[in-house]
Amino acid sequence: MSPNTPDGAGTVAQVGEFGLIDRITRGRPQPRTTLLGPGDDAAVVAAADGRVVASTDVLVEGVHFRLDWSGPEHVGRKAVAVNLADVAAMGAVPTAVLVGLACPSETAVAVVDQLTAGMWAEATRARVGVVGGDMTQAPALVISITALGDLQGRAPVTRSGALPGDVVAVAGKLGWSAAGLAVLGRGFRSPVSVVGAHRAPEPPYPAGPLAAEAGATAMIDVSDGLLADLGHISAASTVAIDVRTDLIEVHQRLVDVASALGGDPRHWVLTGGEDHALAATFPDPRGIPDGWRVIGTVTHGTGVTVDGAPYTGTTGWQHWR
Amino acid sequence: MSPNTPDGAGTVAQVGEFGLIDRITRGRPQPRTTLLGPGDDAAVVAAADGRVVASTDVLVEGVHFRLDWSGPEHVGRKAVAVNLADVAAMGAVPTAVLVGLACPSETAVAVVDQLTAGMWAEATRARVGVVGGDMTQAPALVISITALGDLQGRAPVTRSGALPGDVVAVAGKLGWSAAGLAVLGRGFRSPVSVVGAHRAPEPPYPAGPLAAEAGATAMIDVSDGLLADLGHISAASTVAIDVRTDLIEVHQRLVDVASALGGDPRHWVLTGGEDHALAATFPDPRGIPDGWRVIGTVTHGTGVTVDGAPYTGTTGWQHWR
Repeated sequence: MSPNTPDGAGTVAQVGEFGLIDRITRGRPQPRTTLLGPGDDAAVVAAADGRVVASTDVLVEGVHFRLDWSGPEHVGRKAVAVNLADVAAMGAVPTAVLVGLACPSETAVAVVDQLTAGMWAEATRARVGVVGGDMTQAPALVISITALGDLQGRAPVTRSGALPGDVVAVAGKLGWSAAGLAVLGRGFRSPVSVVGAHRAPEPPYPAGPLAAEAGATAMIDVSDGLLADLGHISAASTVAIDVRTDLIEVHQRLVDVASALGGDPRHWVLTGGEDHALAATFPDPRGIPDGWRVIGTVTHGTGVTVDGAPYTGTTGWQHWR
Repeated sequence: MSPNTPDGAGTVAQVGEFGLIDRITRGRPQPRTTLLGPGDDAAVVAAADGRVVASTDVLVEGVHFRLDWSGPEHVGRKAVAVNLADVAAMGAVPTAVLVGLACPSETAVAVVDQLTAGMWAEATRARVGVVGGDMTQAPALVISITALGDLQGRAPVTRSGALPGDVVAVAGKLGWSAAGLAVLGRGFRSPVSVVGAHRAPEPPYPAGPLAAEAGATAMIDVSDGLLADLGHISAASTVAIDVRTDLIEVHQRLVDVASALGGDPRHWVLTGGEDHALAATFPDPRGIPDGWRVIGTVTHGTGVTVDGAPYTGTTGWQHWR
């Protein structure tokens, strides 16, 4: 990033904490679930069925994003999206986010404005409020988001309910973010469809509650890669999962990008993280809702296989490694 | 901090994200309000009256704490305490916290273990669950906490309800953290009563719901200093607030420390932040609950005065400045 970028609005140090919070929150419309919005010690959010779903994620510049690859607005959108996807993966409808933002004092206010614009854009897309937050100084740009959600009377769909005989299905994109990352890693900026998917994923939020309504037995947000995240369901449910590649459609755009860069599009689909698709198990393939597609089966046993055999590529990625 | 401290458990990079999360969450008892604890995409927390209070705060090493002045366990306690105090200041009973932890890959696991022990200690003191979290790599140690709470059917007590004729009251310690900071700044480590108050404040959580029950018209968590935070009530409620020093008891311990260091104990009480006392306004001095003490009055006008005159010291502190 270029925190010293000249800008009429100056740096965050010049505007100060309260000035920044005012810029971020003033005049923003809030949904009906925001009973008390930003500006007090805490917010009050509707939790209609007497429970609240809550998840938190931290994104760090240089670890989860690079401001030379993604503009601040994309980063803001992504930070909100990854958290709302966690809420949707429980079968809940997202209701609100809280934002913790730490950045160097010389950060341009324009950067914070764009980050915030991205957060509001994604929140608005998901119809949730940005109900509170905190801003402070730090040696690096760190964004912490907490998302809240409403189960609407349903039981939460955990990772541990998959049963032998279930089918595995996914909703949303797979492999697009990995393709975009490969493109950016080679110094390119297009095609925008995959680069945009990396910069700001668009998780299929409504697919989460739809799956819960349809009787999904287990569900997870695909953040580390399809096989890695199915591995979490496999471990939590004590079942084996087999993914069938003949059921996985690899979009022509991924094939084209892989062909141009010399990559393997199927590898992106199976192991690429950060698209924030949803993966779930259902008792009956005939009952899966719109937007979901069957890609495999659940059986007795342990572990995740691809076409009946262990996958030999690297699955997921390790923080700190 | 000394992230390279030799330790049998190694560094966070060696243990990895999932290993760390397991160390932090395994075998911890959760209160009844934790309907689904850590380990899935999101937690589920009881919100009995159909609303949830939510607040988030970010603490950064070198900005909000120094690991050479406070051990990791103190920092963990403080990080949880400052958030729970925000929830209590709405008149709510805290129910849960979510933890975002970012730290350098060479951080000793022992540091994370101690941080976590502190978080659990404070959470247990307040009878709340640590229901979820996220761990990641960052150039600096950054702790982000989100606290949730239950209003138990009451209206939230905001900053904007104070009325002329109300009295101002406080619950909890004032000036102790500032005294402790002054002691540490001179290179001393005692008296432990003030140093401990700086390292890990003990906000009077039950005083928040008690005040709400007793009809408090406005309330705030004293994080930036008494006069600065009363200034927020004054501005939000469009009233004037006068603090009367003859009503403020300065504890003998603060007098002693100030005498030894050459400081002004009353200045610590009026402007010292981070004790996380609660300040509130009440319509009737005879109705204020146990643990609260009247320190001033609310009148028509604007701004905060001390004994009828503007206070000439520095009030509060500015992030980034």
